[in-house]
Amino acid sequence: MDLNKICAGITNVNSKFAEQAQKRLDSLTKPQGSLGRLEEFAKQLVAITENPMPSLDKKVVFTFAGDHGVADEGVSAFPKAVTPQMVLNFLNGGAGINVLARHAGADVVVVDMGVDYDFSNPSVSRLIKGGSFVSPKIVSGTKNMRREPAMTRDEALRCINVGIDLANEYAKKGCKIFGTGDMGIANTTPSSAIAAVLTGRPVEEITGRGTGINGDTWRHKVQVIKDAISYNMPDPADPVSVLAKIGGAEIGGIAGLIIGAAANRIPVVVDGFISTAGALIAYCIEPKTRDCMFSAHMSQEAGHKAMLEKIGLRPVLDLDLRLGEGTGAALAMFVIEAGLKIYKEMATFGEAGVSEKS
Amino acid sequence: MDLNKICAGITNVNSKFAEQAQKRLDSLTKPQGSLGRLEEFAKQLVAITENPMPSLDKKVVFTFAGDHGVADEGVSAFPKAVTPQMVLNFLNGGAGINVLARHAGADVVVVDMGVDYDFSNPSVSRLIKGGSFVSPKIVSGTKNMRREPAMTRDEALRCINVGIDLANEYAKKGCKIFGTGDMGIANTTPSSAIAAVLTGRPVEEITGRGTGINGDTWRHKVQVIKDAISYNMPDPADPVSVLAKIGGAEIGGIAGLIIGAAANRIPVVVDGFISTAGALIAYCIEPKTRDCMFSAHMSQEAGHKAMLEKIGLRPVLDLDLRLGEGTGAALAMFVIEAGLKIYKEMATFGEAGVSEKS
Repeated sequence: MDLNKICAGITNVNSKFAEQAQKRLDSLTKPQGSLGRLEEFAKQLVAITENPMPSLDKKVVFTFAGDHGVADEGVSAFPKAVTPQMVLNFLNGGAGINVLARHAGADVVVVDMGVDYDFSNPSVSRLIKGGSFVSPKIVSGTKNMRREPAMTRDEALRCINVGIDLANEYAKKGCKIFGTGDMGIANTTPSSAIAAVLTGRPVEEITGRGTGINGDTWRHKVQVIKDAISYNMPDPADPVSVLAKIGGAEIGGIAGLIIGAAANRIPVVVDGFISTAGALIAYCIEPKTRDCMFSAHMSQEAGHKAMLEKIGLRPVLDLDLRLGEGTGAALAMFVIEAGLKIYKEMATFGEAGVSEKS
Repeated sequence: MDLNKICAGITNVNSKFAEQAQKRLDSLTKPQGSLGRLEEFAKQLVAITENPMPSLDKKVVFTFAGDHGVADEGVSAFPKAVTPQMVLNFLNGGAGINVLARHAGADVVVVDMGVDYDFSNPSVSRLIKGGSFVSPKIVSGTKNMRREPAMTRDEALRCINVGIDLANEYAKKGCKIFGTGDMGIANTTPSSAIAAVLTGRPVEEITGRGTGINGDTWRHKVQVIKDAISYNMPDPADPVSVLAKIGGAEIGGIAGLIIGAAANRIPVVVDGFISTAGALIAYCIEPKTRDCMFSAHMSQEAGHKAMLEKIGLRPVLDLDLRLGEGTGAALAMFVIEAGLKIYKEMATFGEAGVSEKS
C-alpha cells in the first residue's frame, strides 16, 4: 500500500453539509445553539459522512498493544510483563476498556502490534470473551530508543499499514465510528518524545507521571527522552521517521487507523495521551485527517494539551482520566452519539406546535 | 409535612464507606487513581447508599415546569405560551430531554408545578408517550416579582413539599438515581435573582442571556432583577422566603426533590442553571443535602459557576449546554454510571494475574 497515494485521496470535509445540518438543528424545539457541543458533534458527523441522516449503530474501539525497549531504562512504575498480562485481561473482558465499551455499546478489537510475548498458545484463543484479537506483530517490542532507533522506517510504515488495513476492513464490515486505544508499559515515554519533537515544546513541559512514577523517576524519564532525541535526531518534517526513531508500534497502528478512517470518511474518536501522539503523527503526515477526528477527553498527562492545540482539537470530556486502553474514547462515543440523536430525533417547532423566538 | 423535621433527619455521608470503596478501586487492574473522576463517582455512590455494591438500574429525570409573572416585563426571547407548548412536547416525546433520557436509559416525569395553562383537557392524557405527567399545580404562574412577591411563603413551602413527596414516592418505587430538570419561560430571571442574593455576587455578574436575548434586553433584565430584589428585600438567611419572594414554583419543586433525595439517600444529578438555583435553595435550607448531589454540567449561563462554588460542586460535563429540561442531567447519569460499572465489573490484579506496581 502506498501511504502517499492514500493520503492524496483524503479531502477536507465540505462545510455545505455542516450548514445543512445547522438548518435542521435550528428548526428543533430548543433555543438556537442551546445544546452547544452536542450540536457541533452532529454537524461534524453529517459533514464527515456526507449523509444527512448518519447512524453510529456499529461502534468499535481498537486497542493497540506494544512493548518498548526503553522500559529497560526504568521509566515506568510497572514491570514490562504487564503488557501481555493486560492483553489477556482485555481478552477475558476484565479491563477498564471492556467495562466502558460494554457500557457504550462498542466492540473491542485488541491488536498485538508489538508485544514481546508469544500469544500463539492455543489457550489464548479460548480466552476471547472481551473482544476480537488480531496479532500482526510487526516487532517483538521496540528497541531501546535511548541507544538506537526504536524501529526501522520500514517497520514504522508497516505499523501504519496495519492501522489502515483495519480501518478498511471494519469500514467494509459496516462500522460507523472508530475509537483508538493503547496498551504498552513505558509508552508515555515515546509519546512524550513525539510530543516534544512535533510541537517544539521542552521535554520537561511535555513529560508526565505516566502510571504514577515519583519525582526522581520523572527526572530520569525526562533525561532518557532528551537522550533519545539527541541520539536519534528525528526530523519533525518527516513524521514517519519520528515514529520509527522515537515512537512505538502501537502508536504507529493508531496513526494508521486514523489515516484509514479519514480515507474511508469514518469518524474516529482519539483517546488520551498515547492515542493523541498517534493522531499527531497522522496529522503531520496528512493534516486533512483532522476533520474526521474527535478528541475523547483531556488527559491528566502533562503534554496532552500541547498536542491537542497543535492538531486543533477540543476534548469532549474532562474527567481526570489517565488510563488509556480507549477508555475515554468509549465514553466519548456515547456523548457524540447523544448529539446525533438530538439532531435526528427531536421534534421541530412546526411538528410540535411550539412558538418560535419573538 | 414538617420541613425542619425532614431536614433534621438528613446526615452527612460516612467517609468510611468511601474508604472501603477506594480499597476495591485500588485492587482493580489499572494504575491507582487512573480513572480519575469515574472513581470519585463510584465512591460517592457507595457512601450515599451505604451499599458496597449499589445499582443505578432505575433512573428518572423530573422535569418541573412553571410560569413566571416576571415574563410580562419582557425579559425572555420566547413568549410565555411556550411553557405549556413545551410541556405537551415533553409528553409527546419530541423534546431534547426525551431524546437524551432515552439515550441514557432514564424515565421522564413531567411535573406541572405552576404552568399558567389548564392541562385537564382529556387529549393531554392521550399524548403521554414521552414520560409520566403529574400536575400538583401550586400556582397558575407566579406573580410578577418586580411589583410583588412571586409567591407566598405557604406556596413556596408547598412547592418544596411536592418535590419531597415525589422523592419519597419514587424511592419506594425502587428508583436508584434522580435527575432534576426545568421548563419555564423567563425562569433564568428568578434563578439569577436567587443566585445574586444567596451568593452575594453583583446582579450584572450573575445574569446571562437565557434563551438568547440581545444586549438591550439583557440590560433591562438586570434592572428588573435589581428592582425585584429592592422591592422584596429577601433575607439570605431565610432561603424559603428567598424562594417565595424572587423564586419560582419549578425551582421550589427542584429544591424539594433534592431535600427528599438526601432524606432517602438517593443520589440526585442537578442539571444546569435553574436546577442549581433550586439546589442552592436546598443547600441553604440544609447544607448536608450536598453530599447526595452531583452537578451534571457547567452551563453557559453566566451565574452558574458562582452557585456551584457556593455549594461546592464540580460539574461532570462541560458541553456548552444552556437548554435545561434535565438534558445535562440525563447525559451525566450515563457517565456517573460508568464509574459505578468500573467499580463493580473490572477484574482485580489477583483475579486477572496482572503484576502490581513495582
